[in-house]
Amino acid sequence: MEVQIAVAKVNKYAISESGDTLEVVERPNGGFSVVLADGQTSGRGAKAVSQMVVRKVIGLLAEGVRDGAAARAASDALFTEKQGKVICTLNIVSVDLHSGTIVLTRNNPASMFICRNNQADCITTESIPLGTSRNVRPLITEIGLEPGLVIVLYTDGLTHAGERHGEPMDVCEVAASLIEEQNSTPQQLADSLLAYAVRLDEGRPADDISVVAIKVLQSNGDSVRRMTVRVPINSVKAIR
Amino acid sequence: MEVQIAVAKVNKYAISESGDTLEVVERPNGGFSVVLADGQTSGRGAKAVSQMVVRKVIGLLAEGVRDGAAARAASDALFTEKQGKVICTLNIVSVDLHSGTIVLTRNNPASMFICRNNQADCITTESIPLGTSRNVRPLITEIGLEPGLVIVLYTDGLTHAGERHGEPMDVCEVAASLIEEQNSTPQQLADSLLAYAVRLDEGRPADDISVVAIKVLQSNGDSVRRMTVRVPINSVKAIR
Repeated sequence: MEVQIAVAKVNKYAISESGDTLEVVERPNGGFSVVLADGQTSGRGAKAVSQMVVRKVIGLLAEGVRDGAAARAASDALFTEKQGKVICTLNIVSVDLHSGTIVLTRNNPASMFICRNNQADCITTESIPLGTSRNVRPLITEIGLEPGLVIVLYTDGLTHAGERHGEPMDVCEVAASLIEEQNSTPQQLADSLLAYAVRLDEGRPADDISVVAIKVLQSNGDSVRRMTVRVPINSVKAIR
Repeated sequence: MEVQIAVAKVNKYAISESGDTLEVVERPNGGFSVVLADGQTSGRGAKAVSQMVVRKVIGLLAEGVRDGAAARAASDALFTEKQGKVICTLNIVSVDLHSGTIVLTRNNPASMFICRNNQADCITTESIPLGTSRNVRPLITEIGLEPGLVIVLYTDGLTHAGERHGEPMDVCEVAASLIEEQNSTPQQLADSLLAYAVRLDEGRPADDISVVAIKVLQSNGDSVRRMTVRVPINSVKAIR
């Protein structure tokens, strides 16, 4: 088998710094984790919060701490620092090769899309962001690694796209129809969802948007790990 | 402009865990850094060392510490822990959007390939791994971001490929000819170099091999950041 993970990420229109932070890290006992956080509001302040949360989580994961415990720790740290005045959403996707599963940890009101055996599911169980109280619990979903599995998760910029114009995006429905139509790569899937949202926002995203698409495939037979990162510099130069 | 970074990574033959560790992290003041370390020997012990070095470096970069200082700190920490008995190579590539440059930090005897204005250079200046003494200095090269720039760096598994059979690989020469022949993506370039080395090792890599290729291109006009990670699971399942 092969696990492919793709990310597509764009800033809120006319804001030079995304409040979303995403990092991919190796797990000390094999496998890797994707950590995605969305800090409240946008711009520099939101970036500082989401970066703090992601740093905290990847630091703990690197020490072998379990995902749920890392999410709780990040929530407690954020609550202690901001006293509930600033919140942050968190998603962790861990490909755990010890258990042969994908573990999804979620502290994010935004839904999550899972397709197994051609059966599409929209996970909408209520989930609370980090930093809201002393007792924040993450929702944890564990799924066996098998070819055909597709998972899509995102920050609320995607679910809120189009709201300004009274045409909110039904992310799970769009994801399901994209998967049905074509056998796209995870990057094409993430790109298509992002492009759909940006169109609904008439080319001017109303919020930072991050989309992560994961696909488990039959192996292509080679044992090379690969990674590609593409960063447009115009958008980044604006950061400074 | 757009910066594209690609990685191709393979384990030493019949060894389930790579001694090479690579992470990509966002810089707190804009831009991002690729950190690549190769711990002495191979397998679990080497992995622990390279992971320790990469963790140390990315933790410091996240606090805004400059690359050279982060490399020195990681060297001192390794020397203090292992008393010079275990060494580790380190390469840091930072796309610094504040200065509009790529900063290359190197503590690695393996060479480095740079192509600017169609002029290929092989950087072979002597460079000492981390942890060898109390006074390890990194070599730092700073290059302006401009379309057409290509940089390739690697662990010594690539430069030593073929040695067992008396046919050592001249990495810079192969890289230069690959660039001349075709306008390949960084992923194709990294994949081709890795495949060339694995062929010289007759399909059984004599060491862990990691190749990082960076290319600066004219922008394609969209402001989306993208990332793809592909991990074969057979090779990873063996890790456990």
